[in-house]
Amino acid sequence: MSHDLARRLTAELEAIELIDPHSHINPHSAASQTLADIMGYHYYTELAHSAGLAKSEIEDPKLSPKEKVGRLVPSLAKLNNTTQVGWLIELCQKLFGFTDDEITVENWEGLYDRSAALMAEADWEEQVLQKSNLKKVFLTNEFDDPLTSFDTDRYVPCLRTDDLVFHLSQEVVRERLAKASGVAIEDELSIANAIGKLFDHFCQRGAKACAISLPPDFSPEGVSAAAAGNACEAVRDGKDDPNARRTLSQFVFWTLAEQCAAHRLPFDLMIGVNRKVYQQGVYQGQDLFDSRVSLIQYQRLFNAFPEVVFPVSVLSQMAHHELVSYAWIFPNVLINGHWWYSNLPSYIEANCRVQLEGVPRSKQIGYYSDMYKLEFALPKFSMYRRILGKVLAENFVIGKGWSEERAVGLGHQLLRGNIETVFAVH
Amino acid sequence: MSHDLARRLTAELEAIELIDPHSHINPHSAASQTLADIMGYHYYTELAHSAGLAKSEIEDPKLSPKEKVGRLVPSLAKLNNTTQVGWLIELCQKLFGFTDDEITVENWEGLYDRSAALMAEADWEEQVLQKSNLKKVFLTNEFDDPLTSFDTDRYVPCLRTDDLVFHLSQEVVRERLAKASGVAIEDELSIANAIGKLFDHFCQRGAKACAISLPPDFSPEGVSAAAAGNACEAVRDGKDDPNARRTLSQFVFWTLAEQCAAHRLPFDLMIGVNRKVYQQGVYQGQDLFDSRVSLIQYQRLFNAFPEVVFPVSVLSQMAHHELVSYAWIFPNVLINGHWWYSNLPSYIEANCRVQLEGVPRSKQIGYYSDMYKLEFALPKFSMYRRILGKVLAENFVIGKGWSEERAVGLGHQLLRGNIETVFAVH
Amino acid sequence: MSHDLARRLTAELEAIELIDPHSHINPHSAASQTLADIMGYHYYTELAHSAGLAKSEIEDPKLSPKEKVGRLVPSLAKLNNTTQVGWLIELCQKLFGFTDDEITVENWEGLYDRSAALMAEADWEEQVLQKSNLKKVFLTNEFDDPLTSFDTDRYVPCLRTDDLVFHLSQEVVRERLAKASGVAIEDELSIANAIGKLFDHFCQRGAKACAISLPPDFSPEGVSAAAAGNACEAVRDGKDDPNARRTLSQFVFWTLAEQCAAHRLPFDLMIGVNRKVYQQGVYQGQDLFDSRVSLIQYQRLFNAFPEVVFPVSVLSQMAHHELVSYAWIFPNVLINGHWWYSNLPSYIEANCRVQLEGVPRSKQIGYYSDMYKLEFALPKFSMYRRILGKVLAENFVIGKGWSEERAVGLGHQLLRGNIETVFAVH
Repeated sequence: MSHDLARRLTAELEAIELIDPHSHINPHSAASQTLADIMGYHYYTELAHSAGLAKSEIEDPKLSPKEKVGRLVPSLAKLNNTTQVGWLIELCQKLFGFTDDEITVENWEGLYDRSAALMAEADWEEQVLQKSNLKKVFLTNEFDDPLTSFDTDRYVPCLRTDDLVFHLSQEVVRERLAKASGVAIEDELSIANAIGKLFDHFCQRGAKACAISLPPDFSPEGVSAAAAGNACEAVRDGKDDPNARRTLSQFVFWTLAEQCAAHRLPFDLMIGVNRKVYQQGVYQGQDLFDSRVSLIQYQRLFNAFPEVVFPVSVLSQMAHHELVSYAWIFPNVLINGHWWYSNLPSYIEANCRVQLEGVPRSKQIGYYSDMYKLEFALPKFSMYRRILGKVLAENFVIGKGWSEERAVGLGHQLLRGNIETVFAVH
Repeated sequence: MSHDLARRLTAELEAIELIDPHSHINPHSAASQTLADIMGYHYYTELAHSAGLAKSEIEDPKLSPKEKVGRLVPSLAKLNNTTQVGWLIELCQKLFGFTDDEITVENWEGLYDRSAALMAEADWEEQVLQKSNLKKVFLTNEFDDPLTSFDTDRYVPCLRTDDLVFHLSQEVVRERLAKASGVAIEDELSIANAIGKLFDHFCQRGAKACAISLPPDFSPEGVSAAAAGNACEAVRDGKDDPNARRTLSQFVFWTLAEQCAAHRLPFDLMIGVNRKVYQQGVYQGQDLFDSRVSLIQYQRLFNAFPEVVFPVSVLSQMAHHELVSYAWIFPNVLINGHWWYSNLPSYIEANCRVQLEGVPRSKQIGYYSDMYKLEFALPKFSMYRRILGKVLAENFVIGKGWSEERAVGLGHQLLRGNIETVFAVH
Repeated sequence: MSHDLARRLTAELEAIELIDPHSHINPHSAASQTLADIMGYHYYTELAHSAGLAKSEIEDPKLSPKEKVGRLVPSLAKLNNTTQVGWLIELCQKLFGFTDDEITVENWEGLYDRSAALMAEADWEEQVLQKSNLKKVFLTNEFDDPLTSFDTDRYVPCLRTDDLVFHLSQEVVRERLAKASGVAIEDELSIANAIGKLFDHFCQRGAKACAISLPPDFSPEGVSAAAAGNACEAVRDGKDDPNARRTLSQFVFWTLAEQCAAHRLPFDLMIGVNRKVYQQGVYQGQDLFDSRVSLIQYQRLFNAFPEVVFPVSVLSQMAHHELVSYAWIFPNVLINGHWWYSNLPSYIEANCRVQLEGVPRSKQIGYYSDMYKLEFALPKFSMYRRILGKVLAENFVIGKGWSEERAVGLGHQLLRGNIETVFAVH
């Protein structure tokens, strides 16, 4: 009965039109053209590589899309236990009419050709959005993205700030900033000024969030104008000075928080990624983390900007209890989705359950896809809805005696309602 | 069937008269007078504040109790998913005859008035104890509490030592110590002497434990008399010397352990709280933690005092595996309850299950209320008993083929038996 | 139905002949002679001690085996909740025909005598292997083990390197190395040369792995020949120089990895143990851990030796998410079993579930016994198979619609197949 109940609740959740609050979609090419766009997603290349496929086999730029898929397929037999391959099968079944439950050396070519034909249809992007019940998708735009030539109502701009915070010591990044903002980058004042221009531009184009991913050892703090000025000078003079780079990062980060306050923009913090840990890994399959991170590092930030909403994602499962606790008392700290290495059903279920036990319902953004291609929203949100349906069934309808309608209402708030409230989208 | 079995076991557990081994009850005013005493509990004020209610709305000293409740009630709709609000509803139903399953702007006033009438009855405190099946409640007394004018058999004194360890560098605390002990505080010897007097006084008044909450970075170690003497001098001279303060903390903490040994008093360690992280938070809603803490920091202490029993609570869920492992081999390390941010059903169930798998049954104190007002024992212990009943059903009756009677015996030991043995109460 | 299904799958898993990829078996005395060999296992002595039994009661060298068991038995009543005692009962029931479900002061003597008679049978070792469905057992041999006079096909040698890495600064260890290798230990070159000889010897005798247990603060890195040379000199001169010892450890560890590469030997890393934390603990019951450890410490190693396979075990449950994530992208990082303080059903089930969600099936070694005596394989692998059967039933047959045969195939790979592939045994 608990299973039937969960299935009923999940079906209700499936009827809710989605707004996806975080993705890496390119709005000029949102949907895939071939199965290579889908299986080229780092999840499959990195897992196949991890299971033994040489990087050179799949990253040869001369490979045709079909050859690339053909080279990846034999590895799937070693990965068919994984959630990630589960997404692949489900999306092939639901979007391409695939009827098998494994992609094999025997059946992949038929799937490839049939799916290519479907993806070539003029309205494929529309079809995917419709079948996925997806209304809007948040992007993650580089700071110098002109944000032109796409429907910003459907594909909601979001200012990605990793380069600004961590790479402004590179001349090329400063030049990009100067060009994008129209401000000559000379000192801390011009940097702050330029960043202000970016925010103006992004907000005029309908941006709904500022976002950044942060390494485990980052600890935001305000820096004095003098210190920021000195750091700018050292960097501009080309000095290889780690302290100056660190001070500049702090200054830029703090300036972003100030701009979020000024523009009433939520600041998505994605905390805990170490870049390029596995140096010879495949494209986008090189990053890991150090679970020794604490939200206490963000204490000053959360106290200094009570007016800024911080939807926080943590990469390490070990940080989730802190996130629950910080969201429990800090009004401006929200829990945001289930990120990357924590985006596995066991973790999602445990986290979903405990945050519904301890954190106000208004402060939890249930899920985002983090997808690069539009076809992934369907299986990823399906996974989340099944888990949410199960938790609502067990903990609320059975555990607390709630009506099914009331439980679905809670599910709606996590899946959609809070996204509308937090990001001011509808 | 597993559900029915769990319910049967839970019912048996409910028949066990409770001794609550840790609370913050004021024995001179143990029960509540109005719903404001209950909803003023920091769980509700901090969650309401976290969900958007301004601190000034609820901390205005001119507010009447009824107005305060009236201001908190609208926020409950954002919190009705939480365990904490679950306790509130259950206690209103079981103690005040509340028949709805939500407290709303429509129904709160009736509840307020009806409950106020009940709480005004002369024997309300007795009623609560009886309905909660509660025999004794441990207190957490400040070191200078005279411990007079209350029934120390029912309300068991317990020496709270946070101020001694962490604030003795403040003149006001040294004066309190001098006054309470009758010893002039001049040097390390007089401090040790004064602390000995406190233990004598507390033990004469029936104290059954010494207790302290500790920040994540604390690492107990013995200090030489000379070092302690120098630290005392620096502090007495009013020097702002963090090293002296730290040495003094170490000295006082170690002296407490020595006194626990001398007086055969268990030393409750509550490990891992960072105070005032959220500086603008509501009263008692400002503390958090850093999960980067390890029991290895207590290695010297556990080795140096084999004759002292240390019931240990950890604030971070991440520290529980270490606690299981340390209690597994150290005879003097016990597991004590489920504390604060770890006091959520998901964490309790997981922890209860694993510590019953790995740690001797004689070394686990199942639960304490941590309550400020007597009415909270009922829903909090109810929550724990439901979880314990479920774990006993699944892991022992079903999993190991134990009889129900044998499983209830194990439950009795966790809920009551070990408290009698460890703290010498009956 | 889910229960029946799990039981069916578990029965299929029980039919798989086992290769145990990590134990501490002494091949010259693999099976036990009396119940004291079994209950003298540190799990029982340390738990009994932790529950109150004095170390002197059980470590008196004049005690007869029967007296020792007689002294341990009364403590079992305080431990009968634990998984460890569950192994003991199951082993006595299945190997000794014990029909009760507790060992008590009343029944232990009969069990002792009956089991002693069975263990005295000439083919007891064969009986145990057969009843446990155990084909091969990996050993953990000290580096100077001659590896003679036992069947290395059944008891597979494995080079344990803790002493080399962490104690080569002791003259006695250098002498053992010189004697075992036939190389005079004078400098870094002779150390590397001697280690090469050990690998030659071990590989000639059929060794299938190199293994080491590592403290939480160890962080492998290559050291220059000059630095290694200086460290050797300081150590040889008897200087008490922690930096020299540390450099020497690094040098030896890196040399081991190089030899693993040269000999195509997997390098089992068992990460996270702190030795002798509880100094007065019973034999083998003194070690603990610090959960503040990260695989990021092994970043350089994993990058530097892509050709070496690293089956990794972590002691702290908190490190498992990192292990899942590192195994997810690093081809040479595998997940190996469930170690020691993480070898409890709750942790195993959670870990088994999540690593099957996120890591290629070819990269997971399901379980090893870690046993000191042969009789423990049966109950320990039984525990694991029941959990694996449950996870396969719930997550694969029910969750993903797999056939039972396909699910058992996945179970076979974890229990046996990957051990064959990774360690080249059959």
